[in-house]
Parts: sequence; structure tokens; C-alpha cells
Amino acid sequence: MRGVVLHGPGHVRVEDRADPTIQAPTDAVLRLAATCICGSDLWPYRGADAVTEPTPMGHEYVGVVEEVGDEVTTIRPGQFVVGSFFASDNTCEICRAGYQTSCVRREPVGAGGAQAEYLRVPLADGTLVSTPGVPDADLVPSLLAASDVLGTGWFGAVAAEAGPGKTVAVVGDGAVGLLAVLAARQLGAERVIAMSRHTPRQKLALEYGATDIVEERGDEGVARVKELTGGLGAHSVVEAVGTQESMLQAVRATRPGGHVGYVGVTHDVSLPGEELFFSHVHLHGGPAPVRRFLPGLVDAIWNRRIDPGKVFDLELPLDEAAAGYRAMDERQAIKVLLHP
Amino acid sequence: MRGVVLHGPGHVRVEDRADPTIQAPTDAVLRLAATCICGSDLWPYRGADAVTEPTPMGHEYVGVVEEVGDEVTTIRPGQFVVGSFFASDNTCEICRAGYQTSCVRREPVGAGGAQAEYLRVPLADGTLVSTPGVPDADLVPSLLAASDVLGTGWFGAVAAEAGPGKTVAVVGDGAVGLLAVLAARQLGAERVIAMSRHTPRQKLALEYGATDIVEERGDEGVARVKELTGGLGAHSVVEAVGTQESMLQAVRATRPGGHVGYVGVTHDVSLPGEELFFSHVHLHGGPAPVRRFLPGLVDAIWNRRIDPGKVFDLELPLDEAAAGYRAMDERQAIKVLLHP
Repeated sequence: MRGVVLHGPGHVRVEDRADPTIQAPTDAVLRLAATCICGSDLWPYRGADAVTEPTPMGHEYVGVVEEVGDEVTTIRPGQFVVGSFFASDNTCEICRAGYQTSCVRREPVGAGGAQAEYLRVPLADGTLVSTPGVPDADLVPSLLAASDVLGTGWFGAVAAEAGPGKTVAVVGDGAVGLLAVLAARQLGAERVIAMSRHTPRQKLALEYGATDIVEERGDEGVARVKELTGGLGAHSVVEAVGTQESMLQAVRATRPGGHVGYVGVTHDVSLPGEELFFSHVHLHGGPAPVRRFLPGLVDAIWNRRIDPGKVFDLELPLDEAAAGYRAMDERQAIKVLLHP
Repeated sequence: MRGVVLHGPGHVRVEDRADPTIQAPTDAVLRLAATCICGSDLWPYRGADAVTEPTPMGHEYVGVVEEVGDEVTTIRPGQFVVGSFFASDNTCEICRAGYQTSCVRREPVGAGGAQAEYLRVPLADGTLVSTPGVPDADLVPSLLAASDVLGTGWFGAVAAEAGPGKTVAVVGDGAVGLLAVLAARQLGAERVIAMSRHTPRQKLALEYGATDIVEERGDEGVARVKELTGGLGAHSVVEAVGTQESMLQAVRATRPGGHVGYVGVTHDVSLPGEELFFSHVHLHGGPAPVRRFLPGLVDAIWNRRIDPGKVFDLELPLDEAAAGYRAMDERQAIKVLLHP
């Protein structure tokens, strides 16, 4: 099969790779209908994460089940499925508490590289969610978004306790941040402040329900959020970048007693204890337990209540993945969908 | 009046100071029935916080109202009252959300120094809670504990979401940690693990409802908590020390999805973002909004349902405060009550 491999910073290639096979009786193998490039793929692409050997890329996927292992009971060949980037048994105590990305048996699905034609998914019963049927083509991008960016933005909004009567600010205007805007509104937030200085992203944020746009960043961004919230700060802030600056911006834009939901994969972040202590904020986040939200998100997409697929503003054949990486790296695309 | 003044590391004196007076129409002046030395007073006493000028000490107090300003409406002279270490109006949006220690009008009560015969309390209506009458002498230590250490331990347990079915671990066996044990049990926790290696403190932890004692610290302490919780970690961990080691011990002893309530005043703490991200814990804490809990705590003490005053294992006349500081510094006393 064809699949994307990263060889070093800035250097991705689509190569012939071995077709995945069932390795454990709980595995499934999928023929992918669509896959995509994640903001987090840019960390190694940009050299911020070390690349020590050729690395199959991608961890977002939707597709049709080709084959399942002997112990798989709920997932069947022929089903169209969506899954999370971490495989989970969905039965352990941690999964039952809603933290499937910390499942005691968790495995990264991305190890096999989802930017490819086929993908092996471990723990298929606990990881995959099937759709009611074969989706219309126009639903595929939205279902693909549910595999990570929608689920991650949703978790950010849930972790920030977005809800009725709340003012929610979102730091970061990538796909996750934009979908956190969508999530905050779906969860009933009264006011959603999108922090963005890029016109196309501002436009999508407004479509997704943002009520205010703040272009300022850092201390000025914090000051602007406070101005908009009677000097107090937002009740809820979603952090969807993962840098020291964005984390502090999120903490400082939150009122005492408020909630920060952080879902940007943190890089070189060090939180000053004393500032955190006196900030009085709640801090929660981490790798989004997408599986917790998938059934509801798939239903909302299937019934066309939400349209998260709009974050894909560039679609390319899988073989042109390198152009997709470049477009995201240069911020010419919000998110790139690849057709295997 | 007589009052404790810190002149430099290790150097406290009881001196003649000016009697406090009503300065704002929302003030009250109290004649103190009891005051005490806080673990946090040891930071400047030990030189960990700089002492640049002679500093009146103390922020925990109970006593009788002597005089109130013209705008005070609910607090009256003659009442026996307990208050928090931060004055709050108890009416602003932040107070109404339960974060009185971040009140938009907050003022430190400690500025006047509560280790003294008299104390000025700003924002009396929003800060003080009166008891149903003059308390029996044996209730005074417990009411004094409510002013800070009980309220702080309670907030730690609430922030850690201690409750029915939960296993709660408490890092720190000072008065706050011990009262967090009490709080966790009162809040319905099934199992409470006290981390302590000091026999008298272990004994009090068991009296307050600890079900397990862990003597190990750091990584070994974490491993022991995991052993006791099926390898997962505690649902809830209260951090009641404030050092880098204790914060990381708390985070690492918590299961994914669990809650850390941190109430130790953080000193030189820097939280590694990536570890926090993948820990999946909830983190909440800060200066305890004692005022939120005071009405319930005063009621529980008045009706003898809880006995937090047991943390005072040394009582001294105010004039012997220096001996009290030494006893706490050398860990010969858990907490020292001073009689003005």
C-alpha cells in the first residue's frame, strides 16, 4: 500500500509500505476512506520533536472494516467506522471514567501511520464507532474530523466547563481551536471569544458560533478578554496551541474559580506554581479521550446538526501529502484532507 | 496592645504596638480570644520569604467584636466571630462563585497581624461569621482552626473532589493535611491515605478517619499509593505542602481523570507541562476561600460533629510566641495556639 513516511524535518514522502495485517485477535484492519494531516504532525515536521528513524505518519482516519480478529465482537467487516488516535479497551476503570486515552491497555493507533491506504487498529471493539450506514460523500470530512480535531476541541470545551451562561475564550485558531468554538456553542455557552488574527479563520469561527473576535495576543489579548468580561476574565478558556505563551495567556484570561481546558500538545511548557496558585483557576486537559464523545459526535454529524468538516480547506490525493504538509506549515491551509 | 513582630529569619518578638482602630466604615475591631501560628508563617521565619521590614505576624483569629464601622450591618459588638485570612465583600461575582479569597475587593487581614490582642478586620460583613453564642472554652481551638487550617484542608478536599466511593490521598501531615483527612472523611470518602512518617501525626490522622498510612515519600510514596489502588492511583489527592517534590508526588499519585487539590502555598514550584498533559489530572487549588465553608464548619464545630482543634498540641501565652515558632520550626508541635 501507499503511505506517508517522515524522514526528517521538512521531509515527508509517500512510499510503498507493507499492507497491515491482523496481529492480535482484538485487531481490525480498515481500508481508509479519508485521512488527514494534524497540527501535531507539524511538531516533528518542523523539527520540534526529534525524528530518529523513518516514521509512518498520521493518526486520524475513517474507513471501511476489511477484516477483524477472532475476539472482535461488535465491529464487523463492511462497517464504516471512525476511531480515536489511541486504541482503548473501553472497559477498564479509567475508560469507564471517560479517559480512554489513558486506558490501561492503550496503544497509539498512529504507530502504523494512518496517512495510508490501510490501517491496523488495535482493540477494535473499544476503539471504533460505526456509523448507521455508508455515509454520503459530503459527510466524510466531518466524520474524519471527529477522529481527532473535533473530539479534541470538544474535550477542551468540556474540560473548560463551557455551558449555559458561560463566557468561553478560545486560544488558538487551528482546527482544534475552531472546533472548540463549535463545541462551546453546542454545549450552550452564551458568549464565545475566538482569539485569531487570520481572516479566513475568524470567518469560520463566526460561522461556528463565535460572538467576539480578539486579534491581540499575550498580555494584550488577556487585557482584551478582561475588558469583554467586566474585568474578571472568562469563565472558561480553551487552550489549543501548546506553547508557554498560549498556556499563560489561557490561565491569565480565566477568572478566579474559572476553568482552563488545555488540549494543545504542550511543548517546553513550564507552569509557574505561584502564579497558578493565586490564579485560582481549574486546570484540566491532556490527550483528548475522543472515544468518550464519538457516539454523540457521530450522531450529530450523521443528522447534520454540526458541520466540523469545514475545517478542511484543502483536499489532496494521498500521493501529494508533501504539498499538504507544506500548506499547513505555511498556514496556507487550516487542515488538509488526504484521499487514499 | 501586645503583638508578634518578625524582624528577620528566626527572629520574632512580642512588642507593644498601637491598638487597631476603625479606619473604614466597613471595618470591625476584635478583641481576640485566641490566635495561632500557621505553617505559612514559617516561610518568612525560615528566610524562604524575604523580610524587608519589621512585620506584624498572624492571620488566624477568633474573638469578640469590640467596635464596628458605620456601614457594618450584620456584625455587632459583643458577638463572638470567626473570619478568614482574606477580607472579602462576599457579594461580588467572584465571591458569589465561592472564591472569596479572590474577591475583587479582597484585603489581607494579616496586614494588621492577628498574633496580637486586638485586630482590625476590613469588610466585616463579608468576612466574619458569628457563632450562635459565646462558645465553651473547649470549642475555641476548633473555631480558631476554622479560620484557616480547617477551611484550607476542607478546600483541598473539595478541590480534589473527595466524596463517596473515592480513595483520597493526602500529601503533607501538617495541620492542613491532617484536617484534609478529616474533611475527606466528612465528605464521604471511602478510603483516606495519609502520607506521614511522624507517629503523633499518624495517630491524629487515624483519629480523623485515615484508613491507610503511607510513610514513603517521592517516587516510593507514589508507588505505594498505586499499590493500594490497583495500580491506578488515587481518585483524589490533596497537596498540603507547597514544594516541587510534594506537587509532583500529588500529580503522580493521582489516576488519569482524577483530581489534585493543592493548598500548600507554592514555593519555587514549576510544573512540567508535558507531564501534566499526559497525567490527565484535574488541578485546582490556591488560597482557600475559607469564607465559603465557614458557616457550615462553624455549625459542625458548634454541634460537636468535628473536633479540628486537636491539631493544636501546644498552647502558650501570646508573650511566649517565640517559643511557639521554635516548636513548629523544629516540628516539635503540629500547631501552636497563642492566648492573648
